Amino acid sequence: MKKKKIEDSEIRKIRNSNFSTKRVTVKKLENILYKPHKALDHGFVRVIDYMGDDSSIVQAARVSYGKGTKKLNQDKSLINYLLSHRHTTPFEMNEIKFHIKLPIFVARQWIRHRTANVNEYSARYSILDNEFYIPKLENVKPQSTLNNQGRGGGMNKEEGKSYIKTLKDHSKKSYDIYNFLLNIDEDGNINDTEKSGLARELARMTLPINSYTQWYWKIDLHNLMHFLALRFDVHAQYEIRIYAKIMLEIVKKWVPLTFDAFIKNRVESLTISSEAVRFLKAKINKKNTKKFSISKRELDNLKKIFDL
Amino acid sequence: MKKKKIEDSEIRKIRNSNFSTKRVTVKKLENILYKPHKALDHGFVRVIDYMGDDSSIVQAARVSYGKGTKKLNQDKSLINYLLSHRHTTPFEMNEIKFHIKLPIFVARQWIRHRTANVNEYSARYSILDNEFYIPKLENVKPQSTLNNQGRGGGMNKEEGKSYIKTLKDHSKKSYDIYNFLLNIDEDGNINDTEKSGLARELARMTLPINSYTQWYWKIDLHNLMHFLALRFDVHAQYEIRIYAKIMLEIVKKWVPLTFDAFIKNRVESLTISSEAVRFLKAKINKKNTKKFSISKRELDNLKKIFDL
Amino acid sequence: MKKKKIEDSEIRKIRNSNFSTKRVTVKKLENILYKPHKALDHGFVRVIDYMGDDSSIVQAARVSYGKGTKKLNQDKSLINYLLSHRHTTPFEMNEIKFHIKLPIFVARQWIRHRTANVNEYSARYSILDNEFYIPKLENVKPQSTLNNQGRGGGMNKEEGKSYIKTLKDHSKKSYDIYNFLLNIDEDGNINDTEKSGLARELARMTLPINSYTQWYWKIDLHNLMHFLALRFDVHAQYEIRIYAKIMLEIVKKWVPLTFDAFIKNRVESLTISSEAVRFLKAKINKKNTKKFSISKRELDNLKKIFDL
Amino acid sequence: MKKKKIEDSEIRKIRNSNFSTKRVTVKKLENILYKPHKALDHGFVRVIDYMGDDSSIVQAARVSYGKGTKKLNQDKSLINYLLSHRHTTPFEMNEIKFHIKLPIFVARQWIRHRTANVNEYSARYSILDNEFYIPKLENVKPQSTLNNQGRGGGMNKEEGKSYIKTLKDHSKKSYDIYNFLLNIDEDGNINDTEKSGLARELARMTLPINSYTQWYWKIDLHNLMHFLALRFDVHAQYEIRIYAKIMLEIVKKWVPLTFDAFIKNRVESLTISSEAVRFLKAKINKKNTKKFSISKRELDNLKKIFDL
Repeated sequence: MKKKKIEDSEIRKIRNSNFSTKRVTVKKLENILYKPHKALDHGFVRVIDYMGDDSSIVQAARVSYGKGTKKLNQDKSLINYLLSHRHTTPFEMNEIKFHIKLPIFVARQWIRHRTANVNEYSARYSILDNEFYIPKLENVKPQSTLNNQGRGGGMNKEEGKSYIKTLKDHSKKSYDIYNFLLNIDEDGNINDTEKSGLARELARMTLPINSYTQWYWKIDLHNLMHFLALRFDVHAQYEIRIYAKIMLEIVKKWVPLTFDAFIKNRVESLTISSEAVRFLKAKINKKNTKKFSISKRELDNLKKIFDL
Repeated sequence: MKKKKIEDSEIRKIRNSNFSTKRVTVKKLENILYKPHKALDHGFVRVIDYMGDDSSIVQAARVSYGKGTKKLNQDKSLINYLLSHRHTTPFEMNEIKFHIKLPIFVARQWIRHRTANVNEYSARYSILDNEFYIPKLENVKPQSTLNNQGRGGGMNKEEGKSYIKTLKDHSKKSYDIYNFLLNIDEDGNINDTEKSGLARELARMTLPINSYTQWYWKIDLHNLMHFLALRFDVHAQYEIRIYAKIMLEIVKKWVPLTFDAFIKNRVESLTISSEAVRFLKAKINKKNTKKFSISKRELDNLKKIFDL
Repeated sequence: MKKKKIEDSEIRKIRNSNFSTKRVTVKKLENILYKPHKALDHGFVRVIDYMGDDSSIVQAARVSYGKGTKKLNQDKSLINYLLSHRHTTPFEMNEIKFHIKLPIFVARQWIRHRTANVNEYSARYSILDNEFYIPKLENVKPQSTLNNQGRGGGMNKEEGKSYIKTLKDHSKKSYDIYNFLLNIDEDGNINDTEKSGLARELARMTLPINSYTQWYWKIDLHNLMHFLALRFDVHAQYEIRIYAKIMLEIVKKWVPLTFDAFIKNRVESLTISSEAVRFLKAKINKKNTKKFSISKRELDNLKKIFDL
Repeated sequence: MKKKKIEDSEIRKIRNSNFSTKRVTVKKLENILYKPHKALDHGFVRVIDYMGDDSSIVQAARVSYGKGTKKLNQDKSLINYLLSHRHTTPFEMNEIKFHIKLPIFVARQWIRHRTANVNEYSARYSILDNEFYIPKLENVKPQSTLNNQGRGGGMNKEEGKSYIKTLKDHSKKSYDIYNFLLNIDEDGNINDTEKSGLARELARMTLPINSYTQWYWKIDLHNLMHFLALRFDVHAQYEIRIYAKIMLEIVKKWVPLTFDAFIKNRVESLTISSEAVRFLKAKINKKNTKKFSISKRELDNLKKIFDL
């Protein structure tokens, strides 16, 4: 049982082939089709297929708008309008399919996004590879004192190194036990012919959640942007943000007009509460701002953003 | 305000273009890309874009199966297995986008399938065309006496003709009133400059549900098959079955192996209750079949199918 | 075939019954259970069932937060935090079921929200009532000159009245033709025993989209708020906003803490683009604001909101 | 940091309370509300809330059927008809909410069902309990020779015991390392004041997938039945089947008529291909059955089921 190659022969063949199509194509995306983009230590993201480009969004929107939209005739302006006014359905008309390798704990966060299609490598059928995510020293941090769910602040270098060594040793040990339970050696051959070995679906239970898994993941552009807005956010875990960052670059190549509108109107936009609107209005017009009941969290945020 | 052409210049340009792509392509589907297939009297179905082919299903399934699947190495056999065992996720990995023109009452049944993406022509923005579905005489039937929700049996020819005339006249009259409310003439020009006309979102209220609308509709292959199994069923309304039939032909061109498995294991398959299984077993083994408590409906069906 | 009563005997019985339950209950919602709230001229909204209250949201959120959330121990503050930070899953833990009567053109906009469960009255099985939406004079307006998809501005009173009369007459005429095609009289009895009448699924084609339909509609609180934010928006059609308004009042009774947070952080909140953030920051800090490339639409909006 | 109690005070209070409601209630389900049903060694399933009963399905279906359904006036018969003819929407009108504790590898299979609402205990915020799934000796089996993805056949008792010991020791060791990385002792107190400890989102990476997690999980009855049909199937992993079995018992208490129809028409039903229908017909009518091209897999299955 040898390691599965990332690119099997079938895919390699496709990668070197060129077909003729009447469908819309995106040159910049064609250039990176099937190519793995490295993520973390053993992971990757690669585009397997896609449907549509910026013009497909406009095309779909205009069916719904029809004759009345003569004035919005510039694609860029229309895309910006659609995105900023949350007209989401035209963006659902584009689709992209990825092949992704990622640690199980990242996969567990990822899968919470339900509006996607997934085929995951099965550890009931197959044997997982000897690959585990081990963070770099610069990413090894204590629990944040500001953010209840994240990491933050500095850590003593020696302490950090000891944690990394512990993670490495434990990962190695876990994989050894996995092989012991499967009754196979490093090369996947039966170890002890007297023994029957444990079923894969049970033996895998010993693997830690920094083990790598992989899947095919297909999603429409609207839901991909929703995923990216949440998973590229500073509150998301560092390890999933790495994947989001790679996929943002891919979106930029695929649908540049939509990407611009997305960054401006979503990723870097600001949503403020009704009370904060009134507060800012008073501030701008030099009225009394003491009477407003904004939450401390929002007020601190406004101060930081607007230099109040 | 002139009639919108089915194929605007942008699409015509694409239709005559050929692009180079590394994505999987399906020649038989490329041949009919963008071409409208006539449906009913004024409707059509045309394929705008697609993602994947039969091999994409196999590819996705093998990520989830991995190394353990050496024996299922024939695509056809694997696709048949996946479909008959309701392993649905690999079929979600293919996607297709249609442009469809259809009567509103058909659209209302269609839209109940929620796992699709839709952009519909908006009668708030735009003016609907003067096109109404009028059934042919052979499809004009009375309420079925067997099926509470459908039509069936014969109808006096003269009576049928009078109903068709009534539908035609009423449709024409409704469109005249629509124009009157909009304060426009047949060519879309303002009719009476003294009047302001009614907003489109209100004027449309006068249109009957045999008016035609159109939309872009995108769906994955699994959900498309679910849609087709339900809408090609004999209990579905004739007018939506016409669309399902056209789309079945398109699926056949797109993914022939999946199409075969779908017809055998879904469209023409039979599901029988636990009691009916016991009944058939007794029948085959010449045991007493009187003791079984099958519903009359299921028993009648078994008798018809198995010539009991 | 007599008219179906809004409240059949079964429901009336339930309405006067009181059961004992260990589930969370909301007194203010119990008080209006099953009671129809009138909408437009013949429509209504009534609550049939519900699951959860404000505390259920907190309960679900704390499973995901667990021990680390001691500080966020006030329900109100937690709900506000969840809603403003788009932690949407806890709001999905509450569910509500409505019975709604509404014009077909409103139903067509409504059904575009896919994350709900629907059972609609079938005009293939049953005969629709003689009820049509006719707008009041004050809502009869021409096409808006500001908003491509809506109505706006004034209309000559006589012209408006003539449009209303036209709508009324056409609705009546359409229903007469519907009965003629069904071969029944006003009371639902067969009209002409020599004729067979047209199947219901065909006869209905003559009905205009201001006919009333009805359905059971069930949705979780998160998706309901999404629906309400879009359908209570000023750009939504007046006739669906009426329904959204009634449902907002119901949400207020059901989950008052969530309602408050929703109004503040969603309905009356403001989202501004990255460029607009920089512009406002310059404005507040009296820097040069000429260099910013905000779209005219957003700039006009900011001026209006902040009195610039 | 003490262990979180399964039932916190808030829930205990509710459990002993009785409220008055006009909503439909199900006595047999009320009796077990909030009570945990033990699953595997440390897991549980408990019902937190529910909406609807058998009558709610009928009620929803009759809105869609309306006046035409006089003959189908018995609830049982209608429910059986709906379920066997895959009229799925009325079953979506009922909803149930569970609190579930389960091993991570089971949670990973479970979450693939996307049409449910989930709030999971977060190991970024909180510390996981020292609880790991260890299979009983009778469930410790080698890889099946018949089923590529499951376990099957016997295992030497001593070998089995040694695997269990390995799993236990490894789980204990993993939790010790988890505590070491968090820099806490068994009681959750800081261990070494010189150290800062690793952030929870990183420390958890060391935990194996037989660790227990917990979540709130809410789903409608149609999708629950779909989940149960797949997860109670003999091809599903033993550990998730245990949960499915408990939930089937709960469904039986909740909606007994639907439960019966579900068992008869889904769980114990049989679906046969078009070719197998023709084969069985020939068999029953003593015609030649040699010419049929049924797959070996289906033929073997038919032989087993019908004693051919």
